Amino acid sequence: MTTSYDCIVVANGSFPQTAGPLELLKSAPAIIACDGAVQNLHERGLIPTAIVGDLDSIPPAMLQLYDDRIHTVEDQEINDLTKAVRFAHSSGFRNLLILGATGLREDHTLGNISLLTDYAPLFDQVEMISDYGRFVPVLQTATLPCTPGQQISIFSMYPCGEITTEGLRWPITHRRLTSWWQGSLNEATGTEFILTLSPDARLIVYFQTPL
Amino acid sequence: MTTSYDCIVVANGSFPQTAGPLELLKSAPAIIACDGAVQNLHERGLIPTAIVGDLDSIPPAMLQLYDDRIHTVEDQEINDLTKAVRFAHSSGFRNLLILGATGLREDHTLGNISLLTDYAPLFDQVEMISDYGRFVPVLQTATLPCTPGQQISIFSMYPCGEITTEGLRWPITHRRLTSWWQGSLNEATGTEFILTLSPDARLIVYFQTPL
Repeated sequence: MTTSYDCIVVANGSFPQTAGPLELLKSAPAIIACDGAVQNLHERGLIPTAIVGDLDSIPPAMLQLYDDRIHTVEDQEINDLTKAVRFAHSSGFRNLLILGATGLREDHTLGNISLLTDYAPLFDQVEMISDYGRFVPVLQTATLPCTPGQQISIFSMYPCGEITTEGLRWPITHRRLTSWWQGSLNEATGTEFILTLSPDARLIVYFQTPL
Repeated sequence: MTTSYDCIVVANGSFPQTAGPLELLKSAPAIIACDGAVQNLHERGLIPTAIVGDLDSIPPAMLQLYDDRIHTVEDQEINDLTKAVRFAHSSGFRNLLILGATGLREDHTLGNISLLTDYAPLFDQVEMISDYGRFVPVLQTATLPCTPGQQISIFSMYPCGEITTEGLRWPITHRRLTSWWQGSLNEATGTEFILTLSPDARLIVYFQTPL
Protein backbone atom coordinates (compact mmCIF):
# COMPACT_ATOMS: atom_id res chain seq x y z
CA MET A 1 0.00 0.00 0.00
CA THR A 2 2.07 2.93 -1.25
CA THR A 3 -0.68 5.56 -1.19
CA SER A 4 -3.47 6.27 1.29
CA TYR A 5 -7.07 5.63 0.44
CA ASP A 6 -9.22 8.78 0.18
CA CYS A 7 -12.48 6.80 0.26
CA ILE A 8 -13.68 3.42 1.52
CA VAL A 9 -16.67 1.68 -0.04
CA VAL A 10 -18.26 -0.88 2.28
CA ALA A 11 -20.12 -3.69 0.51
CA ASN A 12 -22.74 -5.94 2.04
CA GLY A 13 -20.70 -9.15 2.48
CA SER A 14 -18.86 -10.09 5.69
CA PHE A 15 -18.20 -6.97 7.72
CA PRO A 16 -14.49 -6.77 8.67
CA GLN A 17 -13.60 -8.33 12.04
CA THR A 18 -9.82 -7.89 12.11
CA ALA A 19 -7.80 -4.87 13.28
CA GLY A 20 -6.28 -3.96 9.89
CA PRO A 21 -9.44 -3.10 7.94
CA LEU A 22 -11.23 -1.73 11.03
CA GLU A 23 -8.38 0.76 11.67
CA LEU A 24 -8.55 1.86 8.03
CA LEU A 25 -12.31 2.41 8.40
CA LYS A 26 -11.88 4.50 11.55
CA SER A 27 -9.43 6.86 9.85
CA ALA A 28 -11.17 6.99 6.44
CA PRO A 29 -11.75 10.51 5.05
CA ALA A 30 -14.99 9.25 3.45
CA ILE A 31 -17.09 6.11 3.76
CA ILE A 32 -19.64 5.07 1.16
CA ALA A 33 -22.01 2.30 2.28
CA CYS A 34 -23.61 -0.10 -0.18
CA ASP A 35 -27.23 -0.21 0.86
CA GLY A 36 -27.69 -2.48 3.93
CA ALA A 37 -24.00 -2.26 4.93
CA VAL A 38 -24.95 0.95 6.71
CA GLN A 39 -26.39 -1.11 9.57
CA ASN A 40 -23.00 -2.71 10.35
CA LEU A 41 -21.26 0.66 10.21
CA HIS A 42 -23.87 2.27 12.45
CA GLU A 43 -23.54 -0.47 15.07
CA ARG A 44 -19.81 0.29 15.30
CA GLY A 45 -20.31 4.05 15.61
CA LEU A 46 -19.13 4.71 12.05
CA ILE A 47 -21.18 7.24 10.12
CA PRO A 48 -21.26 6.82 6.33
CA THR A 49 -20.63 9.87 4.18
CA ALA A 50 -23.09 8.47 1.63
CA ILE A 51 -25.37 5.47 1.20
CA VAL A 52 -25.78 4.19 -2.35
CA GLY A 53 -27.91 1.40 -3.81
CA ASP A 54 -31.42 0.43 -4.76
CA LEU A 55 -32.26 0.48 -1.03
CA ASP A 56 -33.84 -2.97 -1.03
CA SER A 57 -31.77 -4.15 1.93
CA ILE A 58 -31.53 -1.10 4.16
CA PRO A 59 -33.47 -1.19 7.46
CA PRO A 60 -36.22 1.48 7.72
CA ALA A 61 -34.61 3.00 10.85
CA MET A 62 -31.38 3.59 8.93
CA LEU A 63 -33.30 5.12 6.02
CA GLN A 64 -34.81 7.64 8.37
CA LEU A 65 -31.65 8.37 10.35
CA TYR A 66 -29.47 8.94 7.29
CA ASP A 67 -32.12 10.48 5.07
CA ASP A 68 -29.77 13.38 4.20
CA ARG A 69 -27.11 11.17 2.59
CA ILE A 70 -29.02 8.56 0.62
CA HIS A 71 -28.45 8.24 -3.12
CA THR A 72 -30.93 5.86 -4.73
CA VAL A 73 -29.75 4.21 -7.93
CA GLU A 74 -32.23 1.91 -9.68
CA ASP A 75 -30.40 -0.21 -12.25
CA GLN A 76 -30.87 -3.96 -12.64
CA GLU A 77 -27.75 -4.21 -14.83
CA ILE A 78 -25.22 -3.35 -12.12
CA ASN A 79 -24.87 -4.48 -8.53
CA ASP A 80 -24.85 -2.27 -5.41
CA LEU A 81 -21.05 -2.35 -5.21
CA THR A 82 -20.75 -0.94 -8.73
CA LYS A 83 -23.32 1.75 -7.91
CA ALA A 84 -21.26 2.81 -4.88
CA VAL A 85 -17.95 2.69 -6.78
CA ARG A 86 -19.33 4.83 -9.61
CA PHE A 87 -20.62 7.28 -7.01
CA ALA A 88 -17.12 7.42 -5.44
CA HIS A 89 -15.64 8.09 -8.89
CA SER A 90 -18.09 10.86 -9.74
CA SER A 91 -17.48 12.40 -6.30
CA GLY A 92 -13.82 12.87 -7.26
CA PHE A 93 -12.18 10.19 -5.11
CA ARG A 94 -9.05 8.66 -6.66
CA ASN A 95 -7.67 6.12 -4.15
CA LEU A 96 -10.39 3.67 -3.35
CA LEU A 97 -10.52 0.83 -0.86
CA ILE A 98 -13.37 -1.69 -0.87
CA LEU A 99 -14.25 -3.61 2.31
CA GLY A 100 -16.95 -6.20 3.02
CA ALA A 101 -16.94 -7.47 -0.57
CA THR A 102 -16.25 -11.14 0.22
CA GLY A 103 -17.75 -13.66 2.64
CA LEU A 104 -21.36 -14.89 2.80
CA ARG A 105 -22.67 -15.85 -0.70
CA GLU A 106 -19.75 -17.01 -2.81
CA ASP A 107 -21.28 -15.85 -6.11
CA HIS A 108 -21.28 -12.29 -4.81
CA THR A 109 -17.66 -12.78 -3.68
CA LEU A 110 -16.56 -13.97 -7.13
CA GLY A 111 -18.47 -11.23 -8.93
CA ASN A 112 -17.10 -8.50 -6.66
CA ILE A 113 -13.47 -9.66 -6.99
CA SER A 114 -13.71 -9.70 -10.79
CA LEU A 115 -15.19 -6.19 -10.86
CA LEU A 116 -11.87 -4.80 -9.60
CA THR A 117 -10.45 -5.01 -13.13
CA ASP A 118 -13.43 -2.99 -14.41
CA TYR A 119 -13.01 -0.38 -11.66
CA ALA A 120 -9.22 -0.03 -12.04
CA PRO A 121 -9.25 2.44 -14.98
CA LEU A 122 -11.54 4.80 -13.00
CA PHE A 123 -9.05 5.43 -10.17
CA ASP A 124 -5.35 5.98 -9.45
CA GLN A 125 -5.63 3.04 -7.06
CA VAL A 126 -8.40 0.61 -6.22
CA GLU A 127 -7.97 -2.31 -3.85
CA MET A 128 -10.08 -4.68 -1.79
CA ILE A 129 -9.21 -5.92 1.70
CA SER A 130 -10.78 -8.79 3.65
CA ASP A 131 -9.93 -10.29 7.04
CA TYR A 132 -7.53 -12.63 5.20
CA GLY A 133 -5.91 -10.74 2.39
CA ARG A 134 -5.74 -7.88 -0.09
CA PHE A 135 -6.80 -7.93 -3.74
CA VAL A 136 -5.11 -5.70 -6.33
CA PRO A 137 -6.07 -5.52 -10.02
CA VAL A 138 -3.07 -5.49 -12.38
CA LEU A 139 -3.78 -4.56 -16.00
CA GLN A 140 -0.23 -4.03 -17.25
CA THR A 141 3.37 -4.91 -16.36
CA ALA A 142 4.04 -3.78 -12.79
CA THR A 143 6.40 -4.06 -9.82
CA LEU A 144 4.52 -4.72 -6.58
CA PRO A 145 5.79 -4.31 -3.00
CA CYS A 146 5.50 -7.30 -0.64
CA THR A 147 7.14 -8.78 2.42
CA PRO A 148 9.58 -11.70 2.16
CA GLY A 149 7.74 -15.00 2.65
CA GLN A 150 4.32 -13.40 2.04
CA GLN A 151 1.83 -15.72 0.37
CA ILE A 152 0.87 -14.40 -3.07
CA SER A 153 -1.81 -15.77 -5.42
CA ILE A 154 -2.30 -14.62 -9.00
CA PHE A 155 -5.63 -15.03 -10.76
CA SER A 156 -5.87 -14.57 -14.48
CA MET A 157 -9.15 -12.89 -15.37
CA TYR A 158 -8.73 -13.54 -19.07
CA PRO A 159 -6.66 -16.66 -19.69
CA CYS A 160 -5.73 -15.75 -23.28
CA GLY A 161 -3.21 -13.30 -21.79
CA GLU A 162 0.30 -14.47 -21.00
CA ILE A 163 2.26 -13.65 -17.84
CA THR A 164 5.80 -13.89 -16.47
CA THR A 165 6.81 -13.39 -12.84
CA GLU A 166 10.08 -12.44 -11.16
CA GLY A 167 10.61 -12.50 -7.40
CA LEU A 168 8.24 -15.35 -6.56
CA ARG A 169 9.34 -18.71 -5.20
CA TRP A 170 7.70 -20.68 -8.02
CA PRO A 171 8.35 -18.63 -11.18
CA ILE A 172 5.78 -18.40 -13.99
CA THR A 173 7.33 -17.92 -17.44
CA HIS A 174 5.36 -16.87 -20.54
CA ARG A 175 2.38 -18.82 -19.35
CA ARG A 176 -1.38 -18.67 -19.75
CA LEU A 177 -3.19 -19.53 -16.54
CA THR A 178 -6.23 -21.49 -17.66
CA SER A 179 -7.58 -22.40 -14.22
CA TRP A 180 -7.81 -20.27 -11.08
CA TRP A 181 -5.71 -22.64 -8.99
CA GLN A 182 -2.72 -22.49 -11.34
CA GLY A 183 -1.32 -19.17 -10.12
CA SER A 184 -2.40 -19.58 -6.50
CA LEU A 185 -0.37 -20.23 -3.34
CA ASN A 186 2.92 -18.74 -4.49
CA GLU A 187 5.31 -16.90 -2.15
CA ALA A 188 7.33 -13.67 -2.28
CA THR A 189 11.09 -14.09 -1.98
CA GLY A 190 11.94 -10.41 -1.38
CA THR A 191 10.39 -6.99 -0.85
CA GLU A 192 8.96 -6.68 -4.36
CA PHE A 193 8.05 -8.82 -7.35
CA ILE A 194 7.55 -8.11 -11.03
CA LEU A 195 4.60 -9.17 -13.14
CA THR A 196 5.08 -8.94 -16.89
CA LEU A 197 1.79 -9.07 -18.80
CA SER A 198 1.02 -9.51 -22.47
CA PRO A 199 -1.33 -6.78 -23.82
CA ASP A 200 -4.46 -8.95 -23.38
CA ALA A 201 -3.66 -10.15 -19.84
CA ARG A 202 -5.43 -8.84 -16.78
CA LEU A 203 -4.87 -10.16 -13.29
CA ILE A 204 -6.09 -10.00 -9.75
CA VAL A 205 -3.22 -10.37 -7.29
CA TYR A 206 -4.00 -11.60 -3.79
CA PHE A 207 -1.63 -10.83 -0.93
CA GLN A 208 -2.24 -12.82 2.23
CA THR A 209 -2.28 -10.47 5.23
CA PRO A 210 1.08 -10.98 7.00
CA LEU A 211 0.45 -12.72 10.32
CA MET B 1 -29.13 -33.35 -6.37
CA THR B 2 -30.41 -36.34 -8.30
CA THR B 3 -28.06 -38.96 -6.82
CA SER B 4 -26.78 -39.53 -3.30
CA TYR B 5 -23.18 -38.92 -2.41
CA ASP B 6 -21.18 -42.04 -1.48
CA CYS B 7 -18.33 -40.03 0.01
CA ILE B 8 -17.79 -36.58 1.53
CA VAL B 9 -14.40 -34.88 1.45
CA VAL B 10 -14.05 -32.20 4.13
CA ALA B 11 -11.54 -29.46 3.30
CA ASN B 12 -9.91 -27.11 5.76
CA GLY B 13 -11.87 -23.89 5.04
CA SER B 14 -14.97 -22.82 6.99
CA PHE B 15 -16.56 -25.85 8.61
CA PRO B 16 -20.29 -26.04 7.73
CA GLN B 17 -22.62 -24.33 10.22
CA THR B 18 -26.01 -24.81 8.56
CA ALA B 19 -28.37 -27.77 8.79
CA GLY B 20 -28.14 -28.88 5.15
CA PRO B 21 -24.45 -29.80 4.91
CA LEU B 22 -24.34 -31.00 8.55
CA GLU B 23 -27.18 -33.47 7.89
CA LEU B 24 -25.35 -34.75 4.81
CA LEU B 25 -22.22 -35.25 6.92
CA LYS B 26 -24.08 -37.19 9.59
CA SER B 27 -25.49 -39.65 7.06
CA ALA B 28 -22.36 -39.93 4.88
CA PRO B 29 -21.25 -43.51 4.07
CA ALA B 30 -17.61 -42.30 4.12
CA ILE B 31 -15.86 -39.11 5.23
CA ILE B 32 -12.37 -38.18 4.08
CA ALA B 33 -10.77 -35.33 6.03
CA CYS B 34 -8.18 -33.04 4.48
CA ASP B 35 -5.45 -32.84 7.07
CA GLY B 36 -6.45 -30.42 9.89
CA ALA B 37 -10.18 -30.63 9.07
CA VAL B 38 -10.22 -33.75 11.25
CA GLN B 39 -10.26 -31.52 14.35
CA ASN B 40 -13.59 -29.93 13.38
CA LEU B 41 -15.11 -33.33 12.61
CA HIS B 42 -13.87 -34.80 15.88
CA GLU B 43 -15.36 -31.92 17.90
CA ARG B 44 -18.77 -32.72 16.40
CA GLY B 45 -18.51 -36.45 17.10
CA LEU B 46 -17.91 -37.29 13.43
CA ILE B 47 -15.22 -39.89 12.79
CA PRO B 48 -13.37 -39.65 9.47
CA THR B 49 -12.97 -42.82 7.43
CA ALA B 50 -9.59 -41.53 6.26
CA ILE B 51 -7.34 -38.50 6.79
CA VAL B 52 -5.30 -37.41 3.78
CA GLY B 53 -2.69 -34.67 3.34
CA ASP B 54 0.86 -33.68 4.11
CA LEU B 55 -0.14 -33.56 7.79
CA ASP B 56 1.30 -30.09 8.36
CA SER B 57 -1.89 -28.79 9.96
CA ILE B 58 -3.19 -31.74 11.96
CA PRO B 59 -3.01 -31.47 15.77
CA PRO B 60 -0.73 -34.11 17.42
CA ALA B 61 -3.63 -35.50 19.51
CA MET B 62 -5.60 -36.21 16.33
CA LEU B 63 -2.56 -37.85 14.72
CA GLN B 64 -2.35 -40.25 17.63
CA LEU B 65 -6.09 -40.90 17.94
CA TYR B 66 -6.61 -41.65 14.23
CA ASP B 67 -3.23 -43.27 13.59
CA ASP B 68 -4.95 -46.23 11.86
CA ARG B 69 -6.51 -44.12 9.08
CA ILE B 70 -3.88 -41.59 8.12
CA HIS B 71 -2.63 -41.46 4.54
CA THR B 72 0.35 -39.14 4.16
CA VAL B 73 0.82 -37.63 0.71
CA GLU B 74 3.85 -35.39 0.21
CA ASP B 75 3.47 -33.41 -3.00
CA GLN B 76 4.11 -29.67 -3.33
CA GLU B 77 2.38 -29.56 -6.72
CA ILE B 78 -1.13 -30.35 -5.47
CA ASN B 79 -3.10 -29.05 -2.50
CA ASP B 80 -4.60 -31.10 0.33
CA LEU B 81 -8.06 -31.05 -1.26
CA THR B 82 -6.71 -32.64 -4.43
CA LYS B 83 -4.85 -35.27 -2.39
CA ALA B 84 -8.09 -36.20 -0.62
CA VAL B 85 -10.14 -36.19 -3.84
CA ARG B 86 -7.63 -38.46 -5.61
CA PHE B 87 -7.73 -40.77 -2.60
CA ALA B 88 -11.55 -40.88 -2.84
CA HIS B 89 -11.27 -41.72 -6.53
CA SER B 90 -8.74 -44.50 -6.02
CA SER B 91 -10.91 -45.88 -3.19
CA GLY B 92 -13.70 -46.41 -5.72
CA PHE B 93 -16.12 -43.67 -4.72
CA ARG B 94 -18.14 -42.25 -7.60
CA ASN B 95 -20.52 -39.61 -6.15
CA LEU B 96 -18.44 -37.10 -4.29
CA LEU B 97 -19.46 -34.14 -2.17
CA ILE B 98 -16.90 -31.59 -0.98
CA LEU B 99 -17.57 -29.51 2.14
CA GLY B 100 -15.47 -26.86 3.91
CA ALA B 101 -13.80 -25.77 0.68
CA THR B 102 -14.73 -22.08 0.88
CA GLY B 103 -14.49 -19.43 3.59
CA LEU B 104 -11.36 -18.14 5.35
CA ARG B 105 -8.56 -17.33 2.83
CA GLU B 106 -10.13 -16.31 -0.46
CA ASP B 107 -7.26 -17.61 -2.60
CA HIS B 108 -7.91 -21.11 -1.28
CA THR B 109 -11.63 -20.60 -1.99
CA LEU B 110 -10.99 -19.59 -5.61
CA GLY B 111 -8.49 -22.39 -6.19
CA ASN B 112 -10.79 -25.02 -4.68
CA ILE B 113 -13.83 -23.92 -6.72
CA SER B 114 -11.85 -24.07 -9.96
CA LEU B 115 -10.55 -27.56 -9.17
CA LEU B 116 -14.10 -28.91 -9.53
CA THR B 117 -13.70 -28.90 -13.31
CA ASP B 118 -10.50 -30.95 -12.96
CA TYR B 119 -12.19 -33.42 -10.61
CA ALA B 120 -15.37 -33.83 -12.69
CA PRO B 121 -14.00 -36.45 -15.16
CA LEU B 122 -12.94 -38.69 -12.23
CA PHE B 123 -16.47 -39.19 -10.87
CA ASP B 124 -20.09 -39.75 -11.91
CA GLN B 125 -20.92 -36.69 -9.81
CA VAL B 126 -18.82 -34.19 -7.90
CA GLU B 127 -20.27 -31.17 -6.14
CA MET B 128 -19.34 -28.68 -3.47
CA ILE B 129 -21.72 -27.29 -0.84
CA SER B 130 -21.19 -24.31 1.47
CA ASP B 131 -23.50 -22.66 4.00
CA TYR B 132 -24.75 -20.44 1.15
CA GLY B 133 -24.88 -22.49 -2.01
CA ARG B 134 -23.92 -25.47 -4.14
CA PHE B 135 -21.28 -25.57 -6.88
CA VAL B 136 -21.61 -27.93 -9.84
CA PRO B 137 -19.03 -28.29 -12.64
CA VAL B 138 -20.58 -28.46 -16.12
CA LEU B 139 -18.27 -29.55 -18.96
CA GLN B 140 -20.83 -30.19 -21.68
CA THR B 141 -24.42 -29.32 -22.61
CA ALA B 142 -26.70 -30.28 -19.72
CA THR B 143 -30.16 -29.88 -18.20
CA LEU B 144 -30.00 -29.05 -14.49
CA PRO B 145 -32.80 -29.29 -11.91
CA CYS B 146 -33.60 -26.21 -9.83
CA THR B 147 -36.46 -24.58 -7.95
CA PRO B 148 -38.47 -21.71 -9.46
CA GLY B 149 -37.03 -18.39 -8.33
CA GLN B 150 -33.75 -19.96 -7.19
CA GLN B 151 -30.74 -17.69 -7.63
CA ILE B 152 -28.28 -19.17 -10.16
CA SER B 153 -24.82 -17.88 -11.05
CA ILE B 154 -22.72 -19.19 -13.94
CA PHE B 155 -18.95 -18.82 -13.96
CA SER B 156 -17.01 -19.46 -17.12
CA MET B 157 -13.71 -21.14 -16.29
CA TYR B 158 -12.34 -20.66 -19.78
CA PRO B 159 -13.86 -17.62 -21.47
CA CYS B 160 -13.03 -18.71 -25.02
CA GLY B 161 -15.97 -21.10 -24.72
CA GLU B 162 -19.43 -19.94 -25.73
CA ILE B 163 -22.66 -20.63 -23.82
CA THR B 164 -26.42 -20.38 -24.27
CA THR B 165 -29.01 -20.72 -21.51
CA GLU B 166 -32.69 -21.62 -21.50
CA GLY B 167 -34.91 -21.40 -18.41
CA LEU B 168 -33.17 -18.47 -16.71
CA ARG B 169 -34.75 -15.06 -16.17
CA TRP B 170 -31.96 -13.22 -18.01
CA PRO B 171 -31.07 -15.43 -21.02
CA ILE B 172 -27.51 -15.75 -22.27
CA THR B 173 -27.27 -16.41 -26.02
CA HIS B 174 -24.10 -17.58 -27.80
CA ARG B 175 -22.00 -15.54 -25.46
CA ARG B 176 -18.49 -15.67 -24.06
CA LEU B 177 -18.38 -14.63 -20.41
CA THR B 178 -15.14 -12.69 -20.08
CA SER B 179 -15.53 -11.62 -16.45
CA TRP B 180 -16.81 -13.58 -13.47
CA TRP B 181 -19.63 -11.13 -12.71
CA GLN B 182 -21.17 -11.43 -16.18
CA GLY B 183 -23.02 -14.72 -15.58
CA SER B 184 -23.75 -14.11 -11.92
CA LEU B 185 -27.00 -13.34 -10.10
CA ASN B 186 -29.40 -14.91 -12.57
CA GLU B 187 -32.63 -16.69 -11.54
CA ALA B 188 -34.39 -19.93 -12.43
CA THR B 189 -37.85 -19.55 -13.94
CA GLY B 190 -38.92 -23.20 -13.64
CA THR B 191 -37.83 -26.58 -12.28
CA GLU B 192 -34.94 -27.03 -14.69
CA PHE B 193 -32.72 -25.03 -17.02
CA ILE B 194 -30.58 -25.91 -20.01
CA LEU B 195 -26.96 -24.91 -20.54
CA THR B 196 -25.65 -25.32 -24.07
CA LEU B 197 -21.84 -25.25 -24.23
CA SER B 198 -19.45 -24.98 -27.16
CA PRO B 199 -16.77 -27.73 -27.10
CA ASP B 200 -14.19 -25.52 -25.35
CA ALA B 201 -16.52 -24.14 -22.66
CA ARG B 202 -16.40 -25.30 -19.08
CA LEU B 203 -18.51 -23.82 -16.31
CA ILE B 204 -19.08 -23.78 -12.60
CA VAL B 205 -22.76 -23.34 -11.80
CA TYR B 206 -23.68 -21.93 -8.39
CA PHE B 207 -27.14 -22.58 -6.93
CA GLN B 208 -28.05 -20.45 -3.96
CA THR B 209 -29.43 -22.64 -1.18
CA PRO B 210 -33.21 -22.09 -1.19
CA LEU B 211 -34.21 -20.17 1.95
